[in-house]
Amino acid sequence: MIQGIGASAGIAIGRSFVLPNWEWELPEQKIDVADFAREFERVYEGIRTSKSEIEQIKDELRDVVGSEETHIFDAHIAILDDPVFMNEIQGIIQRQYKAAEVAVKEAIDHFVTMFDLLDDEYMKERALDIKDVGNRLLKHLLGAPEITLPSDTQPFILIAKELSPSQLAHINPQHVLGIVTLAGSTTSHSAIMARALGVPLVVGVETKLAEPIQTGQTLVIDGTDGSVFIEPEQEIIQTYTELHNRQTEAKQRLHGIANHRPVTPDGKRLELAANISSFKELEIALSSGAHGVGLFRTEFLYMDRNRFPKEEEQFEVYRSVAERLAGEPLVIRTLDVGGDKQLDYFELPEEDNPFLGYRAIRISLDRKDLFKTQLRAILRASHYGAVKLMYPLISSVDEVRAANAVLNEAKLELEEAGIPYDKGMKIGIMIEVPAAVMIADLLAEEVDFFSIGTNDLVQFTLAVDRMNEEISHLYEPYHPALIRMLKMTVEAAKKAGITVGVCGELAGDLRALPIWLSLDVDELSMSSHSILQVKQRLLSTSQEESGEVFEKLHSCRTSTEILALLNAFMERVDKKTANG
Amino acid sequence: MIQGIGASAGIAIGRSFVLPNWEWELPEQKIDVADFAREFERVYEGIRTSKSEIEQIKDELRDVVGSEETHIFDAHIAILDDPVFMNEIQGIIQRQYKAAEVAVKEAIDHFVTMFDLLDDEYMKERALDIKDVGNRLLKHLLGAPEITLPSDTQPFILIAKELSPSQLAHINPQHVLGIVTLAGSTTSHSAIMARALGVPLVVGVETKLAEPIQTGQTLVIDGTDGSVFIEPEQEIIQTYTELHNRQTEAKQRLHGIANHRPVTPDGKRLELAANISSFKELEIALSSGAHGVGLFRTEFLYMDRNRFPKEEEQFEVYRSVAERLAGEPLVIRTLDVGGDKQLDYFELPEEDNPFLGYRAIRISLDRKDLFKTQLRAILRASHYGAVKLMYPLISSVDEVRAANAVLNEAKLELEEAGIPYDKGMKIGIMIEVPAAVMIADLLAEEVDFFSIGTNDLVQFTLAVDRMNEEISHLYEPYHPALIRMLKMTVEAAKKAGITVGVCGELAGDLRALPIWLSLDVDELSMSSHSILQVKQRLLSTSQEESGEVFEKLHSCRTSTEILALLNAFMERVDKKTANG
Repeated sequence: MIQGIGASAGIAIGRSFVLPNWEWELPEQKIDVADFAREFERVYEGIRTSKSEIEQIKDELRDVVGSEETHIFDAHIAILDDPVFMNEIQGIIQRQYKAAEVAVKEAIDHFVTMFDLLDDEYMKERALDIKDVGNRLLKHLLGAPEITLPSDTQPFILIAKELSPSQLAHINPQHVLGIVTLAGSTTSHSAIMARALGVPLVVGVETKLAEPIQTGQTLVIDGTDGSVFIEPEQEIIQTYTELHNRQTEAKQRLHGIANHRPVTPDGKRLELAANISSFKELEIALSSGAHGVGLFRTEFLYMDRNRFPKEEEQFEVYRSVAERLAGEPLVIRTLDVGGDKQLDYFELPEEDNPFLGYRAIRISLDRKDLFKTQLRAILRASHYGAVKLMYPLISSVDEVRAANAVLNEAKLELEEAGIPYDKGMKIGIMIEVPAAVMIADLLAEEVDFFSIGTNDLVQFTLAVDRMNEEISHLYEPYHPALIRMLKMTVEAAKKAGITVGVCGELAGDLRALPIWLSLDVDELSMSSHSILQVKQRLLSTSQEESGEVFEKLHSCRTSTEILALLNAFMERVDKKTANG
Repeated sequence: MIQGIGASAGIAIGRSFVLPNWEWELPEQKIDVADFAREFERVYEGIRTSKSEIEQIKDELRDVVGSEETHIFDAHIAILDDPVFMNEIQGIIQRQYKAAEVAVKEAIDHFVTMFDLLDDEYMKERALDIKDVGNRLLKHLLGAPEITLPSDTQPFILIAKELSPSQLAHINPQHVLGIVTLAGSTTSHSAIMARALGVPLVVGVETKLAEPIQTGQTLVIDGTDGSVFIEPEQEIIQTYTELHNRQTEAKQRLHGIANHRPVTPDGKRLELAANISSFKELEIALSSGAHGVGLFRTEFLYMDRNRFPKEEEQFEVYRSVAERLAGEPLVIRTLDVGGDKQLDYFELPEEDNPFLGYRAIRISLDRKDLFKTQLRAILRASHYGAVKLMYPLISSVDEVRAANAVLNEAKLELEEAGIPYDKGMKIGIMIEVPAAVMIADLLAEEVDFFSIGTNDLVQFTLAVDRMNEEISHLYEPYHPALIRMLKMTVEAAKKAGITVGVCGELAGDLRALPIWLSLDVDELSMSSHSILQVKQRLLSTSQEESGEVFEKLHSCRTSTEILALLNAFMERVDKKTANG
């Protein structure tokens, strides 16, 4: 047995398949000054092809793992778009008279070495991204075939030196039981992907191996604790097979509650809805027992294309989703780009702090033409289902009124044209800016519902960019300030008699459940993957006991104290469930 | 009379002096491949010289206009450090066989044209920065002399096509009565500088001029409303001379109250302290009647050098300031770099959102070695005056405790070495992160005082980067959310019996005075330039009436309503003062 690092939970038992190294032969001869332009063009062409290939991977993956994880590939596109990368390649061609593929290879090596030299985990992972996207570009320049995994054999456990997100994207979970990589870390993009795909992954075994693993060896791996058994005793295989079966059964039991009502033992009903980005994702949501869609992120309709989607195109998508939901609610959030979400065809300004910049409702109110097109499409779709409209990043009463003014124009236009829409369509806002929490009482008088976006709210409240690895320890969703803000927001909503939900990542975090039950929120909207687990816990967590633990949270001074209380509560509920 | 745009208030009457254009002759002959390395080195050398010259300008200016405004020149240094700029220059040398100065000139033209093409006010001003810094670099490559203004004539009104911050930095307010530029805007770096220097400035007169202004013409300009009179009637000159005299008298009256006690008509005392960055700035503060220093920004001790300042060096500065203050309070804030403040010798990570990143106390707690050195220096200085210690960017109780743990280590070390320090030194924190407001009651139990940093607090609360021109209309310090947060913070401090001050820009904003009086804060700390004006108003604003207007603010739903109330209140006070 060797001890690696568990990076994606689950057990896999099977034969190993060792991935060959990605090595290509490069042309040796020098080029001529007259060839510069041609080689430049080849690089550009390779970049274009690589970009469209990455977009395609994103598209396909999104339906499997959801839109959050596919952001990983935006980093790859950003590298291809980076003038520094292109400059380096051009420099090598011009100064050393080398062919495009050699220049690309050397540029990759240059940046990877540079980042690797920095003694910084984050930078090392950016090096992996460069290597990954660089290899893709190189593949296109060389016309090399994609390295594929065998699909005609028994399912296997994949062994690789390291595995890029691109390679993972091509993995068919039907054929790959689990993965072991020699290098890697639990926070890498590949680890995030493996978790999203539900494939067990153990990383960092390189220094532990006396000799390399060979293709065809029998392995048992446990992605939870990181253990890897090579050619284990029959006893071990049996133990882990039983453990694996128990885990599979637990999963099946989980699916068995998809149609249960989301009600606590003491009768509090808490609707569990899904966050989706496309029509296709809706199917996963529905099979997980989602009660409608609490957040339809419309920005993905705007991405991966070369112009703004027309009213008719948007309408078709919104209507399809609304109809498929057959009367269950559909909350459509208006365009939320900017920050870290870009559109190819809509040049956003270079910003020093894009999270605090020109984005979301700010763009919509600045570009009322685009905004009205979207509002018309949503209004038209409201005729075909229980559609609600939601504005993102609201920070003032002024913004709500300005947005509603455009909405009213759109309504008038539809009326004049005799196009039907739901005159009673509910209007809500995201509560994700600290200012919105502070004036929640004022905002509650302007709208029909709130949806708390915990991700941005935590970022702004703590002044911490959650993507910044240097300070990731300061991203504390269970900070006492947040608990108070959640309370303020929900109380303001209740007082005004409007509904209030939560649609940030915290909604799907099991530890937070007693907070929602105690505050008596109306709905949680989350990634479809989380719905069943949250529901399972909801079925065994009483609102009354939640209220008791929530009371105690108020005397906590730090996140650590709060998390300790919530974890202890979870364990108590688990024990009771196991005993009962 | 022609109507320009008033960009820096004040009246100037005098003869015009037209600044000649900055035009140089460039070498025409092509260079050879063998010269590439030499030309590269010339560019590098020019960049080095330009950078050290800019640092010197910053140094000199800081003592005149304060540290805030000299940040303008950081943008210039950033351009010189930008690899894209250098790449462009090298590319022109290599591909077109041109000499360094020609390549620099063409690179400047290239970027300026590019930015100018964008129909965006902000980008156009970045173009001005590039032109300014590019001309400086060019000047060094050509060995050209600095363009100087006459200093042996009568003081004059300067006329220029446009004026760069670099040019303004060399202006002696003794010789330049006022400035008129053909181009320019009120938000440009030059306008900010002119206001800091107190020089009247009218911009944007280009399209209004029937014929160019000539050197030696008599002019009257009013930087408040933007009017420019060319060869005016005697009557006009007389009117404006009287107006000018009245303004001068008002200024003198203002200086007359420097030693008045800062007390409202109904007896509320509100201490007015200064924000400073260096020992030299302290003199301006004292001559403005500052009651001590409410914010000593220590980061400037760390800037403009090539290594961290040693304990001894820091101690000398802190002690000098403390001794010069002769018992009046001195609040020393620990190192607040990161965000938009960089150190040459301390590589900070590239961050997507530096305002939400690795900065201030977060760096100190990560680099405890550096932190302890500073704390030791501050502790030692506390023996020589009324020194208080303040931590920036606090967002949790944990951070205060972690910082105090390092402080205690430093105290122990000093005790063991027998070095004296003030054992009762007060410890405070900046309240500038929304989370700190939300848990102000918890934080108040950990420290001796609060100082509200309104600049960052507004940015995080509204999710608006105040430097981002695209959304500058959303930077609303008088947002109802802010009013409530100020109240929460002050009430928490009062309840815990600790003192509370304000040290952000809002402290020096006259409109905010009734808020502070009504909340009963203990101290306002501001730029020395604002102290007398705030004191003048304080002497005629009663706390009781302030309370009445503050009550009304609570029913306001928007910044517009709040500002209307505060402006009306200011006018009422002014009228009463004028009548009484």
